[in-house]
Amino acid sequence: MISFYTWTTPNGRKVAILLEELGLAYESISVNLGRNEQFTPGFLAISPNNKIPAIVDHGAEGGPLSVFESGAILTYLAERHGRFLPAGGAARYKTLEWLNWQMGGLGPMLGQLGYFEKFAQEKSAAASARFLAEADRLLSVMDKRLAESRYLAGDEYSIADIAAYPWAVTASTFLAEVLAERIGTKPALLRWMELVGSRPAVQRGMR
Amino acid sequence: MISFYTWTTPNGRKVAILLEELGLAYESISVNLGRNEQFTPGFLAISPNNKIPAIVDHGAEGGPLSVFESGAILTYLAERHGRFLPAGGAARYKTLEWLNWQMGGLGPMLGQLGYFEKFAQEKSAAASARFLAEADRLLSVMDKRLAESRYLAGDEYSIADIAAYPWAVTASTFLAEVLAERIGTKPALLRWMELVGSRPAVQRGMR
Ligand SMILES: N[C@@H](CCC(=O)N[C@@H](CS)C(=O)NCC(=O)O)C(=O)O
Ligand SMILES: N[C@@H](CCC(=O)N[C@@H](CS)C(=O)NCC(=O)O)C(=O)O
Repeated sequence: MISFYTWTTPNGRKVAILLEELGLAYESISVNLGRNEQFTPGFLAISPNNKIPAIVDHGAEGGPLSVFESGAILTYLAERHGRFLPAGGAARYKTLEWLNWQMGGLGPMLGQLGYFEKFAQEKSAAASARFLAEADRLLSVMDKRLAESRYLAGDEYSIADIAAYPWAVTASTFLAEVLAERIGTKPALLRWMELVGSRPAVQRGMR
Repeated sequence: MISFYTWTTPNGRKVAILLEELGLAYESISVNLGRNEQFTPGFLAISPNNKIPAIVDHGAEGGPLSVFESGAILTYLAERHGRFLPAGGAARYKTLEWLNWQMGGLGPMLGQLGYFEKFAQEKSAAASARFLAEADRLLSVMDKRLAESRYLAGDEYSIADIAAYPWAVTASTFLAEVLAERIGTKPALLRWMELVGSRPAVQRGMR
């Protein structure tokens, strides 16, 4: 059994999708960010960076194991169950390239854009412009990649796609006002969003 | 032989440190970001996100392998040479937690702080305040972790330390004006910076 600490945000949904793809038994535990529940001592013991998602795998080899950071959680579950991340060879490192690209680029930059467009008390034209340009650049990098390759890592669906998909959806829904037009001009990205979005496990994980 | 594409920035130095720690044969190839060399077609074929670092391992199993994203490069080299990332168990995932934390948190947030403090044509008080607060929060998370654990992942030096160290140095030098005082109040972070900084391979990699 896995305890899955989450909230209704893209980083949480990555892990939900993989849990569904793997058909694992898990209980979802809501960490209400609106009420600052990420700062309770019990949660910080599992996730010292005060962020969701985090998991505790009660059935891990060697005893219960907690993991925070979505990229680490995806890697852990994929390695433990031997799926969606090849065990070796070029395909493994193409997967890790695009997973790290999502973790260090697409996620944080769309996150900052969302902050300055939607949440910030004090707006900043300079910050909005910077993160809009960066978001568009990153979505273009993704579109270019997906024009030459079925999935982000290559021919196979992987944790790189699982990491990027909820953020692509956020870009085209939550951030539609500033990004919809730009996404509309990226045909390979749209093709991939449909392909990944048609998977039943993805649909369950996104709920 | 490894071709190592880099520039004098923290993300490049991570890989330099690991190459030195592993004692590998490599050639450094400068990608001059000031002259936009990251946008040349030759480099984009290796690093489609137009960023350093990237490597080509000409001796990889199955033929030459290119890898971009520092987190993916560190993981590749650590796995290939069986060092600085345990092959399994809790220690492996503690390492990947803190590696991903660096990739998705410490790196991007210090990067944005540096941008708005040092490079932006148009300053933004709101952006500076946000990224300063976020940098301080992340350095505090690190300090708290290092008060209870010798290295980021636990008892052993790992690629998580290698990823975080050049950014900690950037925080205390390049960003000293805004961060020096805050780092001064984080004793465990300072202890760890001295410990990691005393390694000869780290000193060579930082040059
Ligand atoms: N790099 C982290 C980012 C996680 C993250 O940003 N989580 C947000 C929600 S999507 C959060 O918990 N924020 C609460 C806070 O920062 O206090 C990951 O991928 O797991
Ligand atoms: N997530 C990437 C970030 C790499 C990065 O930001 N590289 C910067 C220098 S530190 C760069 O090449 N910038 C050039 C550009 O963005 O055009 C990694 O860790 O490898």
